[in-house]
Amino acid sequence: MKLVRYGKPGKEKPGLIDAAGKLRDLSGVVADIGPEQLSPKGLAKLAKLKADKLPLVRGKPRYGVPLTGTTKFVAIGLNYSDHAAETGSPVPKEPIIFHKTLSSMVGPNDDVMLPKGSVKTDWEVELGIVIGSRARYVTKKAALDHVAGYVLVNDVSEREYQLERGGTWDKGKGCDTFGPVGPWILTADEVKNPQNLDMWLDVNGVRMQTGNTKTMIFDCATLVSYVSQFMTLNPGDIITTGTPPGVGMGMKPQQFLKAGDVMTLGIAGLGEQSQRVLKFKA
Amino acid sequence: MKLVRYGKPGKEKPGLIDAAGKLRDLSGVVADIGPEQLSPKGLAKLAKLKADKLPLVRGKPRYGVPLTGTTKFVAIGLNYSDHAAETGSPVPKEPIIFHKTLSSMVGPNDDVMLPKGSVKTDWEVELGIVIGSRARYVTKKAALDHVAGYVLVNDVSEREYQLERGGTWDKGKGCDTFGPVGPWILTADEVKNPQNLDMWLDVNGVRMQTGNTKTMIFDCATLVSYVSQFMTLNPGDIITTGTPPGVGMGMKPQQFLKAGDVMTLGIAGLGEQSQRVLKFKA
Repeated sequence: MKLVRYGKPGKEKPGLIDAAGKLRDLSGVVADIGPEQLSPKGLAKLAKLKADKLPLVRGKPRYGVPLTGTTKFVAIGLNYSDHAAETGSPVPKEPIIFHKTLSSMVGPNDDVMLPKGSVKTDWEVELGIVIGSRARYVTKKAALDHVAGYVLVNDVSEREYQLERGGTWDKGKGCDTFGPVGPWILTADEVKNPQNLDMWLDVNGVRMQTGNTKTMIFDCATLVSYVSQFMTLNPGDIITTGTPPGVGMGMKPQQFLKAGDVMTLGIAGLGEQSQRVLKFKA
Repeated sequence: MKLVRYGKPGKEKPGLIDAAGKLRDLSGVVADIGPEQLSPKGLAKLAKLKADKLPLVRGKPRYGVPLTGTTKFVAIGLNYSDHAAETGSPVPKEPIIFHKTLSSMVGPNDDVMLPKGSVKTDWEVELGIVIGSRARYVTKKAALDHVAGYVLVNDVSEREYQLERGGTWDKGKGCDTFGPVGPWILTADEVKNPQNLDMWLDVNGVRMQTGNTKTMIFDCATLVSYVSQFMTLNPGDIITTGTPPGVGMGMKPQQFLKAGDVMTLGIAGLGEQSQRVLKFKA
């Protein structure tokens, strides 16, 4: 299933994208797409629906973040060996964990806003893991049983804040609008192999990132298991798993986002996002 | 006012501690203590109540985290010059920001659990700032207008995870039970000067930390303003502001928590906490 939330910000309704690519309304069936619906029981209930009997949604509504109730937006750093190389960093021996804020989360095609005075805002196409059942000290073998599905994430990053302002990476990762998520959660039963998904990102129509999840240093099962050693993952929590090469920071000369730019990105099976970059506005 | 939540985990009711130190029930007045009640309007409404007319609560109920609806548990590192010195770190030029998880939050006297295999779990008494109204790019001058009150926090930290496992500090800061908060939120109107509060922490009755918020490198107004440049702070969000000297990592030889230890800590006006340290249990 492709689970979505559609409608105006703060007023999103649950929906799904059917086999023909059409948006169907789920608000007569579930209140929202959240921890309850993403649990194994909730997903089993949704899987029994006949999508072609659900009401079609007319027009072209906005897509919101495709889930609610997230309590943790964990991110993994430098998880593609060729991306580590382009940033001049050694390949990590263990996964690097940082946190994105919940307030950074926006819909897949919402505007991305440059923070006040930002000069180094950068893009990162990433595969996001959506947790479906509580994961705490889970083994690598059992890890994927705790995954409800996968989602496209743009881990927008301000490199000066992240790397030159002292302290941890968190400073450059949690600004408002720095976490576009969606358009849909593709449930795990439809992802044959999360370690073989093509991914790409364009800026103004020019290809910047090309990658495949097969070049991850730590795969999804390892990441869910690893993160669960340090914190309990709850249904609705997201782990975004790092980016392949091609970020602006890694270019010679470096290239960063400016107002008016458009980012377009996608992962095979997970749909596409497109964000306009805007100057800061209050 | 001293605002609390009392009762069994997940079933807490709102309350307040009256001038005589007695617990009064607020569940007839508000649904909970959260963003709505902590807003300027919500606090003004509560301030009109006559505490001595509210129902007395019998017995000695457990105290929970004194607020709900937190979306961000921001923490500041190395914010006391003498603590920076004891850890061998230079005094930061700008505040160090990291995140604690929401899943680390527990009541002030709940047990603290050592993570599986942990050998370097440490204590940190801290002043927590509770946000009452949305703060985004606020000036230092206006910053404290966005503060609902202050709260006692134990920023429990696993030093090996924090410093020796690669990546950011977040790995050692967000384990389950690593964020005791409470017993109460002391509303900002009753905190004459947040930069002159005595604080202390004992382990097994032996004084470990003694400090005063006057030796903070960056004061509360600076921190609220600073953090709001990197992320929007919402009502109910918490910034915990760093710890004074006396942590286990800074001792010679270093000393860390073991099962059976008891931490007791307090800040003037903000009450006391006491936590038993337990081995990991599933």
